[in-house]
Order: sequence, then C-alpha cells, then structure tokens
Amino acid sequence: MSDSLVSEMQEYLKKTKNYLDNNLIPFWVVNAVESRYGGFQTNYDRNGKRTDITEKSFLSQCRSIFTISHAMRLGFNWPNGEQVLKQGIEFLFENFRDNENDGYYWIVEEDGKPKDVNKIIYGHSFLIYGLSEYALLTGNDEAKNEAIRIFDLLQEKVADPKDKGYFEHFDQCFNLKGARGDIGTHKSLDVHMHLMEAFTTLYELTHAENHKQALVEVIDLIFDKMVDQDTGTGMAMFTNDWEPISNVELDTVWGRDRFDEDGKATDITSYGHNIELTWLYLHAQDVLGIPREKSLDRVVPIYNHTYEHGVDWKYGGLYVEGKRMGAATEVTKEFWQQAEAMIGFLDAYLVTGDKKYLEAFSNIHDFVFEKMINWEQGEWFALLAEDGELIWDYMGTSWKVFYHTIRGTCQVIKKIEKIINKDQV
Amino acid sequence: MSDSLVSEMQEYLKKTKNYLDNNLIPFWVVNAVESRYGGFQTNYDRNGKRTDITEKSFLSQCRSIFTISHAMRLGFNWPNGEQVLKQGIEFLFENFRDNENDGYYWIVEEDGKPKDVNKIIYGHSFLIYGLSEYALLTGNDEAKNEAIRIFDLLQEKVADPKDKGYFEHFDQCFNLKGARGDIGTHKSLDVHMHLMEAFTTLYELTHAENHKQALVEVIDLIFDKMVDQDTGTGMAMFTNDWEPISNVELDTVWGRDRFDEDGKATDITSYGHNIELTWLYLHAQDVLGIPREKSLDRVVPIYNHTYEHGVDWKYGGLYVEGKRMGAATEVTKEFWQQAEAMIGFLDAYLVTGDKKYLEAFSNIHDFVFEKMINWEQGEWFALLAEDGELIWDYMGTSWKVFYHTIRGTCQVIKKIEKIINKDQV
Repeated sequence: MSDSLVSEMQEYLKKTKNYLDNNLIPFWVVNAVESRYGGFQTNYDRNGKRTDITEKSFLSQCRSIFTISHAMRLGFNWPNGEQVLKQGIEFLFENFRDNENDGYYWIVEEDGKPKDVNKIIYGHSFLIYGLSEYALLTGNDEAKNEAIRIFDLLQEKVADPKDKGYFEHFDQCFNLKGARGDIGTHKSLDVHMHLMEAFTTLYELTHAENHKQALVEVIDLIFDKMVDQDTGTGMAMFTNDWEPISNVELDTVWGRDRFDEDGKATDITSYGHNIELTWLYLHAQDVLGIPREKSLDRVVPIYNHTYEHGVDWKYGGLYVEGKRMGAATEVTKEFWQQAEAMIGFLDAYLVTGDKKYLEAFSNIHDFVFEKMINWEQGEWFALLAEDGELIWDYMGTSWKVFYHTIRGTCQVIKKIEKIINKDQV
Repeated sequence: MSDSLVSEMQEYLKKTKNYLDNNLIPFWVVNAVESRYGGFQTNYDRNGKRTDITEKSFLSQCRSIFTISHAMRLGFNWPNGEQVLKQGIEFLFENFRDNENDGYYWIVEEDGKPKDVNKIIYGHSFLIYGLSEYALLTGNDEAKNEAIRIFDLLQEKVADPKDKGYFEHFDQCFNLKGARGDIGTHKSLDVHMHLMEAFTTLYELTHAENHKQALVEVIDLIFDKMVDQDTGTGMAMFTNDWEPISNVELDTVWGRDRFDEDGKATDITSYGHNIELTWLYLHAQDVLGIPREKSLDRVVPIYNHTYEHGVDWKYGGLYVEGKRMGAATEVTKEFWQQAEAMIGFLDAYLVTGDKKYLEAFSNIHDFVFEKMINWEQGEWFALLAEDGELIWDYMGTSWKVFYHTIRGTCQVIKKIEKIINKDQV
C-alpha cells in the first residue's frame, strides 16, 4: 500500500471511530432501553421521537442484545451496557418465551402481552446469535444453555431431514405453515444465511461437534443450492427441494422490501445479501479454522458481480437489486445494504489485495457519511433515492433495529485497522 | 499535606471518577430521557425499572437540564448530551409554560397535559438555574432570555417589597396563597437558598447589575434572618416579616421530609441544608469576585456545628436533623444530605486548612460508597437507617432527581483536584 493510501485509510478510520463513539452509539444508548416495562424499543422517527408504534418485536429484542454485546466484545464503550443487556435478556425470557409450546413469540405488546404468537425461524436465528454473543461477552451460563436448547429445538422441529435445510414459518404449536395463503412452504437464502451467522457464533461459544457440523452443512447448502457461483449471485426463494421460485411478499415480514404483485423473478438478486454473505461466510471459516485462501472461488465471483453491477459509481452507494446477469433494477439505496457492502469490500481487499475494492468501499462510505446518516440524531435514514434524496426518513422501526448500522460501523473500524496493521507488518 | 494524605485523596479521586463515569452517569444516560413524549422521566424503582408514576414534575425537568448541562460544562462525558438537552428544553417550553397567565405549571402528565397548574417558586428557581447553566454550556440565547424573563417575573410578582425576600406558593394566576390550608403565607430558607443558587448562575451568565444586586440581597437576607451565626445553624420557616415558625408539611411538597402533626419546632435544624448553604454561598462569593477569606465568620460556625452534631462517627454518614443546640433528633441517612456534606467538608478544608474536615469528608464518602450507592444500578438509595439498613430503596421519583447525586459527585472530583493541586503548588 502506498503512503497516500495508508493515510487515506487512516482518515476513514478516524472519521468512522469518531462517528461511532460520538453519534451512533450515543443515540442508541439514550433510546434503546424501554424502561417502563423493560426490553428494547426501536421505533423512532426522524427527530429521535418515539412513534405511535409501541409493540416489541422478537427481532428487535434479539438484535439489540446481539449488537450491544458485539460492540462491547469488540472493545467499544456502551455506558451501562451490562445492566442494559441484563434487563433486555430478562424481558425476552419473561415475555417472549412460550413455556407451553416451546419457542418464542414473534411480537408482544410493550408490556409483554403476546400479540403475534407465531414461531418464525428468522427470529430464532437471531435469538441464538444474540444469546451466544452475550454469553461470549459475559460468560453467562443461562444465556449459553438457552442458545443451545434453541439450537436443539431447531434440529428437532424445524430442520428438514429429507431435503436438508430449515423451514421458516410455524404456528404457535410449531405446526409448519406456508409463509402466505397462496403458496406452500418454502426455503430461503435469507434465513439460511442468518442461521449460518447464528451457528458460527454458537460454535465459537461451545466448540461442540454438533454445532460445527450444522454450521458446515448450512454453508454447503448455501453454496450448493442458493448461490450461483458462475455469476456470483444469490437467489432468494426455493421450493422445499431447492427449485428456485419467485420471491414474493410474505404474510409475516421482517423488513420493508418492495414487491410487485407477481413477486420478483428468480433472475433478480440482492446486492446487499450477496455481499453480506461473503463476509459472514469468511468469518464462519475463520471460526472453523479454515484458511481464507480456500474460499476464493466462492467469494470472488460475488465481489466482482457486486462491484460491477451493485455499486452506483455516479451518485455513490449500493443499489437494492438487479438482474443476476445484467444491470440494477431497483436503484434506491437502503440503509442495511450500505453497511454490509462497506464490510464486504474491505474484506474483499483483505483477501485479494485488489485496490479496486477499496475504491468501492470509499464510494459507499462517502455516500453513507454524506447522505445516509441523519447527523442531527446519529442513526441512518432508512431509504434514499438513487441520487440520495430522502424517501423513508425514520430512525428505527420494529424491523429497522441498530444491528446493521452499529455492527457495520464497528466492523469497518476493525477491518480498516487490520488493513493498516497488515500493511505495516 | 503529608504524602500519605495526598495519596489518600488521590485514592478517593480515582474511586469517585470511576464511579461517576462508569456507574452514575451511565444509569441516567440510559434512563433520563422519556422518548415517547419527550422531556425527562426520573421515576425508577430499585431495579432501575420505571414505576407506575408517569407524571413529569417541573422540578425534574429543570433539575435534569441543570445537571446534564453542569456535568458537561465541567468536562464530563454525557453521550448525546446536546441532543438530550435540546429535546428536554423543547418539552419544557412547550408543555409547562403557561402562555396565558405566565410562569410554569408544577406537574404535567407524561404527554404534557397540565396536571397541577399552581405556580411554585421553588420550581421557578430551578428553571432559572437550569436555563442559565444550559446557556453557559451552549451559548443558547433563547434559554438565556427565558432565564432573564423569569427573573424579571419573580421581581414583579413574587418578591415582597415590604419585608424583602420572596413568597413561595401561587395559584395558576399568580395569586399568592398559603402553602397549606391552615397557615397563612410564609417564607423559607430552602427557597431562598435555591434562589441564591439560581441568581449566582444567572449572574455568571449575564453579569448584569440587577442580577448581582438581587443575589447580594438574598445572601444578606439569608445570613441576617435565617441563619443563627452563633450556633452556625439555619432555621426553616418564617412569617412574612421573618419571625421563625414551626416547619410544617405543606400541601405542595418537593421531597419526602417526615413530619409530626405539630411540625418541627424552630430549634430543629437541617444538617444537610446548613452544609449545602456553605458551599453554595462560597460559590456565589467566587462568582461575585469576593475573596473567600471574608466569609469565614459566616461559614466556620456552620462547619463546626455540622461536624460536631451532624456527622455520625459510629456508622458513618450525615444525620437528617437535630437540635440547633444539642444532638441529632432524626438519625436516618437521606441521600441528598450526603452529597452536599461531601462537597461542604472538602470546601471547609480548602478555606480553613483544618484536616478534621477531611476526616468528615472521608467518613461520608465511605458511607456513601459502602451503603448508599445501589451498585447494581449506579444511583443512590433514597433513605437508610442510622446503621445503613435500607428504608426507601427507589432510584428516583418526581422529586428525587439526579441533581444532588451527580452534581455532588462531579463537585467532589473538582474539589479534590483543587486540594491536590493546591498542595502541589
């Protein structure tokens, strides 16, 4: 690396650290805890005021626990963090856990009364992820044992022994159901990627053979069935036996994806999911003790596709989605994809040494710091138009939690430090 | 100072800083902001959970604004502090200010609806104090102008031109009223001491002649009428023309003092108010530019009375109250007196050089750190028995705000630093 590149990366490091410590974490330190009934509340408008939505989603609780634990485990300061986490875990166990039918409810009222009692596996993956990270931070055995217990529950009730992988949507009594009225059951990349992430952290915690095996299996499944290695693109939805199908809006959602009536054809790919997959996968390999070099054929095609088609070289930022072979079809800029792309492109430089990926990183970092961050508050806006104009201006919802933004900002700091240190060795 | 004394004070300094940064401020950073409707919420139980009380008191809003501004102005870190203060000021102006009848309401519901529309001067003194401190921190003109406007309002509607001083309780339309059904109007040391504190900070902000004059007048009134300089003790309540009367429970209260039916005779004095008065008074002299040495005859008798009768040399801590000539009569240990006594005794050492006051400081600091702080949460318990057993276990109410504990802890740090530096010069 040239001296000028080193000093450019040092400048990004400084800006990012400063932003994390003085803007982003402080916003959530003040706002994340809901002290009336306990747990976390992430529904905030553009001005940092609570919106009218008072529910608490399973996802927001699990992701808050993960994110605060993660920031602290990486050495960042979260005032009162241990106490904040403790009360969050208590609220979660007390109000979401269904002691009769097992598993955890999907949504509760702010006081903890159940509101949507379905059992959604996407949420359970974040439960394992959050509890494992918390146990790694604190050594807490109750959290560790619960993460293990939920892993076992997934193997027993959710895994598909016939075609492999995991189903997604269940009713309160863990009866499998379709994710919306008119389609049968399905499987998805989204859920399997987050299960990979969860099993990685669980295995990091336990080093148990069965956790390792489940992690390796889900990784192989993703790259065998859900990612096309020639184009370096993921597909979203599948039949139970892994035929790609159109990606449609589900009855139970955990985000605000935009769908036509017919859904999205199988030739549409999500740049954000693809690039997120690369760094989560390499992290899993690190935890498994497998050298990164062995994974180049899996990640490089994704890097290249994202670099060539996902990055907006005119206005900056990462597009939402596009053709698996061809150009972007949705050119808005959503918050979470920017976070994942910053990490992914730094990783791409770390494993390939190709400087073009640092250009992609800078492009997205500049876009985020110039357009996406609401500097008045510290958190990111939800959605911008191609040119950066504001579309969705809120700071958080039950689904837009601070998981992507804080994890992303922390990881950017750690990856840049690695790049600078590597260069100095 | 001997080397061993210096290293002892350095040890207290380290412990106190560590506690402030890692326990006390973090608790309130997380809990003080009420993000649903804005403003501050200080009703928390022993476990740091919100209690059922949802009202917002004028006092809690003003004291929160003062305290956060004060901590920041002294250089302590309050994550997101400017944003937190800004929303607090907005909630205050929007919901407490009575644009028709002037002045500010006493209590509003959590959403800002008026609940108790009386105009209480104790609260207005903290409004001037809080807004002035905020303006000193930020340079904000709106806050400065409002502090000045409320000062003028007090001179116009609340001051007693005949017998001097200020009345205390008014209805919504600023009609003077008795503080409870069966007694007429009265004046009190408590309110005048806090007006002195408010006028000090206002004068520090404006350097205006009329603010200086009002400050000097209230100081002289306190030492002429309300403090007995022979015994070094304050009296609590007075007729309009300054005859001491029994201290009785009022209809409108801003604390949880314990009263018999007959109230407290005029020979009962509050150790906490006495020692608080000394350091607030010396701070006023500093701001007025009057050398501290000129005040020895006013403060030393109070130091000695508090040292001899107020400090519990067996169990530690400061008693609540006792005979002006004689022993303690209420030997419980309440939170705020401990904070004020720590500051007062450090000041006593600074102005007299007498090491016995450092012993009194250590006594109380040890008691606070061993018994009063709820280490699980970071804030102090409200009331302990003589031997330190827990009586009131909550962290905050509409009246127990974090003003005494945080200001006290910040000031202890600043005073110890002064002691150590003075010694090294």
